[in-house]
Amino acid sequence: MFEYFKKDKALEVANHRVRKLLSAQGEVNAQSMALKIIESYRDFNPAQRQAFFDFLANQFNPDPDLVSAASQAYCADPSAQNLIRLVHVTEPQRQELLRRINRAPSGTSALIGMREALLAQLKTQPNWAAIDSDMHHLLSSWFNPGFLELHEITWNSPAQLLEKIIRHEAVHAINGWDELRRRLQPDRRCFAFFHRQLPNEPLIFVEVALIPAIANNISVLIDKNAPVGEAKHFKTAIFYSISNCQPGLRGVSLGNFLIKRVAEKLIEEIPTLKTFCTLSPIPGFKKWLDSGALVSDNADLSAGAKRKIQTALEMVKNANSSMASGGDSLVSDRERQDAHMRLCAVYLKHVSATPTGDAVAKFHLTNGATLHQIHWGADNSKKGLQQSEGMMVNYLYDLNKVEAQHEAFSLGQVAHASGLNKWL
Amino acid sequence: MFEYFKKDKALEVANHRVRKLLSAQGEVNAQSMALKIIESYRDFNPAQRQAFFDFLANQFNPDPDLVSAASQAYCADPSAQNLIRLVHVTEPQRQELLRRINRAPSGTSALIGMREALLAQLKTQPNWAAIDSDMHHLLSSWFNPGFLELHEITWNSPAQLLEKIIRHEAVHAINGWDELRRRLQPDRRCFAFFHRQLPNEPLIFVEVALIPAIANNISVLIDKNAPVGEAKHFKTAIFYSISNCQPGLRGVSLGNFLIKRVAEKLIEEIPTLKTFCTLSPIPGFKKWLDSGALVSDNADLSAGAKRKIQTALEMVKNANSSMASGGDSLVSDRERQDAHMRLCAVYLKHVSATPTGDAVAKFHLTNGATLHQIHWGADNSKKGLQQSEGMMVNYLYDLNKVEAQHEAFSLGQVAHASGLNKWL
Amino acid sequence: MFEYFKKDKALEVANHRVRKLLSAQGEVNAQSMALKIIESYRDFNPAQRQAFFDFLANQFNPDPDLVSAASQAYCADPSAQNLIRLVHVTEPQRQELLRRINRAPSGTSALIGMREALLAQLKTQPNWAAIDSDMHHLLSSWFNPGFLELHEITWNSPAQLLEKIIRHEAVHAINGWDELRRRLQPDRRCFAFFHRQLPNEPLIFVEVALIPAIANNISVLIDKNAPVGEAKHFKTAIFYSISNCQPGLRGVSLGNFLIKRVAEKLIEEIPTLKTFCTLSPIPGFKKWLDSGALVSDNADLSAGAKRKIQTALEMVKNANSSMASGGDSLVSDRERQDAHMRLCAVYLKHVSATPTGDAVAKFHLTNGATLHQIHWGADNSKKGLQQSEGMMVNYLYDLNKVEAQHEAFSLGQVAHASGLNKWL
Amino acid sequence: MFEYFKKDKALEVANHRVRKLLSAQGEVNAQSMALKIIESYRDFNPAQRQAFFDFLANQFNPDPDLVSAASQAYCADPSAQNLIRLVHVTEPQRQELLRRINRAPSGTSALIGMREALLAQLKTQPNWAAIDSDMHHLLSSWFNPGFLELHEITWNSPAQLLEKIIRHEAVHAINGWDELRRRLQPDRRCFAFFHRQLPNEPLIFVEVALIPAIANNISVLIDKNAPVGEAKHFKTAIFYSISNCQPGLRGVSLGNFLIKRVAEKLIEEIPTLKTFCTLSPIPGFKKWLDSGALVSDNADLSAGAKRKIQTALEMVKNANSSMASGGDSLVSDRERQDAHMRLCAVYLKHVSATPTGDAVAKFHLTNGATLHQIHWGADNSKKGLQQSEGMMVNYLYDLNKVEAQHEAFSLGQVAHASGLNKWL
Repeated sequence: MFEYFKKDKALEVANHRVRKLLSAQGEVNAQSMALKIIESYRDFNPAQRQAFFDFLANQFNPDPDLVSAASQAYCADPSAQNLIRLVHVTEPQRQELLRRINRAPSGTSALIGMREALLAQLKTQPNWAAIDSDMHHLLSSWFNPGFLELHEITWNSPAQLLEKIIRHEAVHAINGWDELRRRLQPDRRCFAFFHRQLPNEPLIFVEVALIPAIANNISVLIDKNAPVGEAKHFKTAIFYSISNCQPGLRGVSLGNFLIKRVAEKLIEEIPTLKTFCTLSPIPGFKKWLDSGALVSDNADLSAGAKRKIQTALEMVKNANSSMASGGDSLVSDRERQDAHMRLCAVYLKHVSATPTGDAVAKFHLTNGATLHQIHWGADNSKKGLQQSEGMMVNYLYDLNKVEAQHEAFSLGQVAHASGLNKWL
Repeated sequence: MFEYFKKDKALEVANHRVRKLLSAQGEVNAQSMALKIIESYRDFNPAQRQAFFDFLANQFNPDPDLVSAASQAYCADPSAQNLIRLVHVTEPQRQELLRRINRAPSGTSALIGMREALLAQLKTQPNWAAIDSDMHHLLSSWFNPGFLELHEITWNSPAQLLEKIIRHEAVHAINGWDELRRRLQPDRRCFAFFHRQLPNEPLIFVEVALIPAIANNISVLIDKNAPVGEAKHFKTAIFYSISNCQPGLRGVSLGNFLIKRVAEKLIEEIPTLKTFCTLSPIPGFKKWLDSGALVSDNADLSAGAKRKIQTALEMVKNANSSMASGGDSLVSDRERQDAHMRLCAVYLKHVSATPTGDAVAKFHLTNGATLHQIHWGADNSKKGLQQSEGMMVNYLYDLNKVEAQHEAFSLGQVAHASGLNKWL
Repeated sequence: MFEYFKKDKALEVANHRVRKLLSAQGEVNAQSMALKIIESYRDFNPAQRQAFFDFLANQFNPDPDLVSAASQAYCADPSAQNLIRLVHVTEPQRQELLRRINRAPSGTSALIGMREALLAQLKTQPNWAAIDSDMHHLLSSWFNPGFLELHEITWNSPAQLLEKIIRHEAVHAINGWDELRRRLQPDRRCFAFFHRQLPNEPLIFVEVALIPAIANNISVLIDKNAPVGEAKHFKTAIFYSISNCQPGLRGVSLGNFLIKRVAEKLIEEIPTLKTFCTLSPIPGFKKWLDSGALVSDNADLSAGAKRKIQTALEMVKNANSSMASGGDSLVSDRERQDAHMRLCAVYLKHVSATPTGDAVAKFHLTNGATLHQIHWGADNSKKGLQQSEGMMVNYLYDLNKVEAQHEAFSLGQVAHASGLNKWL
Repeated sequence: MFEYFKKDKALEVANHRVRKLLSAQGEVNAQSMALKIIESYRDFNPAQRQAFFDFLANQFNPDPDLVSAASQAYCADPSAQNLIRLVHVTEPQRQELLRRINRAPSGTSALIGMREALLAQLKTQPNWAAIDSDMHHLLSSWFNPGFLELHEITWNSPAQLLEKIIRHEAVHAINGWDELRRRLQPDRRCFAFFHRQLPNEPLIFVEVALIPAIANNISVLIDKNAPVGEAKHFKTAIFYSISNCQPGLRGVSLGNFLIKRVAEKLIEEIPTLKTFCTLSPIPGFKKWLDSGALVSDNADLSAGAKRKIQTALEMVKNANSSMASGGDSLVSDRERQDAHMRLCAVYLKHVSATPTGDAVAKFHLTNGATLHQIHWGADNSKKGLQQSEGMMVNYLYDLNKVEAQHEAFSLGQVAHASGLNKWL
């Protein structure tokens, strides 16, 4: 038995249950056995939980001797039998354990909860990465897009579900039921992915506004008193918010499939829709600007471009310092705005494909979207001003181009609309 | 490109599609790409299909150099990072390919169909075992019991579904709708497992008779004119037929979970039920008897037991030869019956745990059931006489014992009821 | 108490329950009280049932004195109050009784069953007409088309429901499940009306064939081996069978609403459909011909027409007598056919609006259909030859004309296609 | 045509449509014709609507001559035929018109809306009573309890439906979604009747608290922060609010059936429930007290009882006048409370069966409930104090007694618990 488990009754019981579930007996009785392990886990205190994760991390790894032998046999003769043997001995037994835990009626939900807890401590517990890797591997297989169900969330959905939408909205907070009702009127749509094993639990959801033209300001989209648009004016679908609901599914691809499925569904229902586009925040801009990374980042720009950026950067500094000192600024509002727009364009175009790039930009550009337009004063909420001086950006989804642009982005190329050239 | 693909346009296209699905581009567009591969496969002629499976078997195996390096690194330092790397490089890329094919709406169904085709030729194509192993691995994960739905099949079920029950019944054939209707009356039940990805497709189903006492004859259970029993006499649940419907899911554990779930469901609905038991065929008995394996098999029996078996065996031979010659037998019917009963008891008790054991016996004994009773004249259909001289057997499911007996059977011990001692 | 009830315990109990249900007490406890009356009725023997209907017929009629007073008051002053009083006192209390019986969960079904039993004896029990009238009045209100649900019956419908379709098909018998399956293929449709109070009980259903052109022969429509037509050839919808399932709903308009709803539904689903038409039997033709009514019926025809009819009639007689005597007929097959066609055209055109008209013709012509074509040899089944010498008829539903033609038919005018002029 | 319709195009059209719907043509095309009439009505301005109701009131009444003749025939010979004829000629043709309007998909809803409008003006338009009577007659038949569906409203119900519960709650207002959520926790239940023709429209709903003992204060039941009770303490079901949602169904019995069905459902689900009881407002008490009716009402009381009442009445007056003058009261709080309790008990016991009785009391006592307890300070909301000085009352539903007490109440007898004797 795992050494320090002996001193703790609850851990000892859990250890015993895990061993039993993995044994021959476990196979035939997996569901009740799995349920008991889930109950053990649920009742752990933090120290026990930590010990349990250590146990999972250390006790179910492949035997190096077996690995070595199987590897050598495979390298000598890569036959089917040697391959099967190799795959078998290198798969951590932990995966089989997790698959058996998943046999309990509530197994999937329990595993997602465990992974959420584990991820929260992963930085300080690097050896748990092996557990995380196994969990991610299995969850990706189980949450395969072929197994997800797309449902529209409407004002006719259960209140219990709507409550979760309010709670999980991570981009533009929903303040109460009246605001939610507005976001579910015919010119606003909401779609979520569900999985049979987590009934009534949205995995991820996206909110869409159906409007005449590309939006340049978030407040008109989410204002609860905004008049409801008529169906004949539904020309553009603006994806204005996308939120994950399950931290335990981090890293499992859901968002890109959701956007594609929703776009297909909307086209089918509303043939007048011509444009699919986001109105997105730029959460990383100010942080990047303040980090001073700009100076070193733009090595491969032309001399002319560098000069303009330098000028913009100085303007922003001047404007900020005169604002800080309370004095009149020598920089006009227009100059200040232009300087920010230029810097933001540079950031999104040239930094997105690098590790310090904006997370939202990375998401949409990986999906193959085009950097379309940047808007000043688009989100003057406190959060919007803090993150990006109130700027927002449209990422355009041209379904004929997403594949090629997705691949180009994987090589570091960001597709942008010609309208942005003046800043670049 | 895989060499011989170059000469065949359809294979070339398929190869291209597979490469694309596995590429970065494939990720973003997986569903339509997967669909195209499924269409390619569907249109293959037999030679193309064979080439395609060879392609799958040969082109997506781990790189021996990478395997060797990762294995050595892991053996030197079994850290989480080295383990993750090892698992990553040993997993055949074929698994990722199969997972992506599964993203198509009909993906799961297509993969099950591919595996069915592949299994049919596996004996002559041993190198395809690696594909089969990957498919089995993934299907087992996707058809995890936690993901299966148990539904009762009733006379109120869709005709389209009932038609499939008639078609897939593999133990006691259902001859037409009237026979089916009888098997769905209140004293006969039918339950099946379903999976969301295969709507309206039963995966496996079991038929149950609710009667006063353990059945010793199959004809009363399946006679379409048998009077319908009253609920107050439902004391015993006889599992009298279990049939798999999806050859492509061979080896994925379904039957044992089905029996357990159905037993639990019936207990909850009908608290008067006290006994859960099968009335099962013995498909391997005559074949085993004719093979002459008996003589060598019973090495570890007592001298007395051996003598009795020897006597029984001679009686059976005498009876058979006199029947063959058309003359009067010197062996009485009763002697002949007793001899068969003895030999059958020996077969089930002592051979079931060996490779030549009866498949049905193996299934129930692995589930932890008890060898309960053997009945003469229990199935006088042509098939019943051919397989086992008309004998059938009850395997008893005592839910308190199945775990322990399951484990004992894995060690070669067959639990039997004391009533069988007179034959053993 | 109703006199002769005193001698019979069951009737006495029923009488007591009816009185109680109608009393103040009954109102508050109507559901359980109603259920008890239904149970009483269900357990009656035939004599008790007869006594019960007599009781219903005699004991709940309006009081003549009250009627007379209310009538005089209303005639003197037709005020709202006097009208309300008049309506109140003339309504038989039986209606309130029936409404209260209907409060039981199974009430509607029970009332329909009562009416079925009652109708079967109505000819010999003319005083029951008052009960029948009340029942018909209420059922018509409850089975208002606004309350009916149209459902398509498919091969995916519950077997239990399909079994009822087989049983109730009254026009062209369905011989077994294979024939039924053919009638539910994509080029054959079946629709039924349902009512919430009779779940899983079709009230009436219609069968439709989707084919390229107007059908002239029933066997190709119902042949179970007929190849399934392709959707691109669905130009004409042939209503080839319509059957009532609930004798207790006789006289409640269902068929015309069903045909209209189905036509609307099909047009919406299959825009290529251009023609809606029946292929109908002529159940009354031979009976009418044999009755000799022809001679007296055609008083208002022109002299020329009369002559032709006379000739046709004689030919038919000659043909029949030579067939009966087994000798060679002097009438050619063609002459015999033409004679029948002419007589049939006359029957449908000139007799349909009279009391001796064909029931099926009345139904469709009342709905506003056009007498379109008559076909020889269209139904050579035994029943078809007996009823109408194998002839069948198309009634065409031109949705733009049905209203006007419905009204014209109520004035005795039958709309016919010009193609029939040669016979008329 | 109805005279003054000629001057108004919209009315002329409506008149034409009504005539057509009632004609032979209307029968075959009823649904589209009915829809057009509903559209006409919907577009009427108030004057047109008034003219339309006058038209309905005046133009579809029975012909006095026909009535007179049929009445005389029936009185001379009350045969089935004469009765059928009598019923036929006295039924206003308006009923057939309303039945045909009801054939439109939205017909029922439209008629309920019409009746709501009509009822709002009935006092000033007494001749519309005939329309109202016909509508009430038909709606009662269509909303027969056998046709109603009982559904539980939970926090999992559609938000759109919950919004209607908030809006229609007529007894104890629901202030926002948090209060609603509390009323849908496991120890609070809500049930509503629905009708298929009005999907998602509750007709009437009742709110129930499941608690250990009979409640004497409303605030603990509806406080949104009240802790949720455990299932093991569910001994008493308190019906604390019942609200009608459809003014157009006024007079159609729904509430008593709802209470009975809910009680039955709760007993089945929660066998520990022993007591079914209300906590009800007394909306008529203060009005009655202020009206001075007390003095004349209590004629049949004993001299002792009269004396006590007189004393109580004086105390209440004194207390009120000293409160009004702002001075110290000579009446103690306890005396004031006792005086009110006595007067209230008298009001509920002796006045409920009279026309001036309390509406809520009438409702429950008609249902056969027992006047169980009166509570001081049970509802100190502004409305509660205004209506009944904050007193509330429990009506107890003893399912074994409701029938008998229902009948007794119809004779003027109010059943009360012995605990109330001290006030009476």
